[in-house]
Amino acid sequence: MRMILDICTSPALYPYYKKENDTVVVVDVFRASATICKMLHNGAESIIPVAGIEEAKQYKSEGFLVGAERNARKCDFADFGNSPSDYTLERVSGKEVVFTTTNGTQAIQAARGCRQLFIGTFSNIDAVLEASLRSAERVVILCAGWENRINIEDMLFGGAFAEKLGEKDELIIGSDSVRIAMELWQQAKDHLLEYVKKSDHYHRLVENGVEADAAYCLQMNTAPVVPYYHKNEKKIRASH
Amino acid sequence: MRMILDICTSPALYPYYKKENDTVVVVDVFRASATICKMLHNGAESIIPVAGIEEAKQYKSEGFLVGAERNARKCDFADFGNSPSDYTLERVSGKEVVFTTTNGTQAIQAARGCRQLFIGTFSNIDAVLEASLRSAERVVILCAGWENRINIEDMLFGGAFAEKLGEKDELIIGSDSVRIAMELWQQAKDHLLEYVKKSDHYHRLVENGVEADAAYCLQMNTAPVVPYYHKNEKKIRASH
Repeated sequence: MRMILDICTSPALYPYYKKENDTVVVVDVFRASATICKMLHNGAESIIPVAGIEEAKQYKSEGFLVGAERNARKCDFADFGNSPSDYTLERVSGKEVVFTTTNGTQAIQAARGCRQLFIGTFSNIDAVLEASLRSAERVVILCAGWENRINIEDMLFGGAFAEKLGEKDELIIGSDSVRIAMELWQQAKDHLLEYVKKSDHYHRLVENGVEADAAYCLQMNTAPVVPYYHKNEKKIRASH
Repeated sequence: MRMILDICTSPALYPYYKKENDTVVVVDVFRASATICKMLHNGAESIIPVAGIEEAKQYKSEGFLVGAERNARKCDFADFGNSPSDYTLERVSGKEVVFTTTNGTQAIQAARGCRQLFIGTFSNIDAVLEASLRSAERVVILCAGWENRINIEDMLFGGAFAEKLGEKDELIIGSDSVRIAMELWQQAKDHLLEYVKKSDHYHRLVENGVEADAAYCLQMNTAPVVPYYHKNEKKIRASH
């Protein structure tokens, strides 16, 4: 069964890409998606994504483990920031983690009405692609972007996902944004980290001394889980 | 004086790109921008852009000349559609034209609060670039897109504009969308029409038998005017 793929480059544009029965793959390459994959791969039981800092503080005061980041920095009150390396097996295995980031958790909020919502990034690209092929007729890659502006790295994931679907002869292009993302991926894929160094977000990571995360976040299939957002309980769990 | 350039890929994203004192260049390559340039180049006195069909019909009933298009087709009640070739010197010289299109006029509405608003496209790229350099500190290219979804051809104009600024050593890149547009332009510029043939909008033009317009709309500097939106009178006139 071939699959229609579209790419929505900003959470604010999701209403214009939305169709009934969509599967949405939320991607925030730097770094929320990789961090979520890492948590679940290291055995976290579930993740409670929250959009606001105040809500995250409330959870913290109730004794929850909390990951919180704004503008590429860990929030002072939190246990973790948004670096995948914070979430070691020792610290998260079997735990529930509350999580809020500048862009990624907002994107989940924007798409929470869809039929099924996965979190995808390079870390789990093959796993999330296989899960999509098993269960979706139309997939929208929803790029978290930066404060609703479009970014390079999330588009590149969209392009990589589209290329992989194409190689399996399963790709139906939904709109021009897929063509743009595929072009970008084509130009970047043989020197991905170098290519991404010109992006706005890479500069932010460097300014905050966490550019080592960039290389990790661009590696494929390092955390082959499929994070799935459960609407009723408002939690992300690994899909089985 | 070097100029900050940003590219906003959809009218719905403009609130996230907006800054004080911005100059906005609204681009709708297929075809509203070229049509507006053609009208003014052929001596139309002014253009009244309206977002809704009902408003355009009202003007028509009051005796105005009206251009109206939806989904790449001329509206039955109108004098013109959205093909630049409709607007001959004989028909528009000295006239005022009411104009509504699927996307272009909505983009003007979205940005009407900015400091100055130009209409730009390949037809007037050098003229609008010179006008921007004379009067702007920051320019946002506002892509009309298609029903708020991003499209290839408007991004390509953004990339061409950025390249020209760069060649004059005047370019400060505002955000990743500029880098994406420049990459796309780099890949497309040597065979622009062929490249654009894969876009959604080109297919729409073919379906409606107006693909000849595509070649015209991609030609540079065929109508070297600078359409300027006057906020108070809500009309577009050629800037002098």
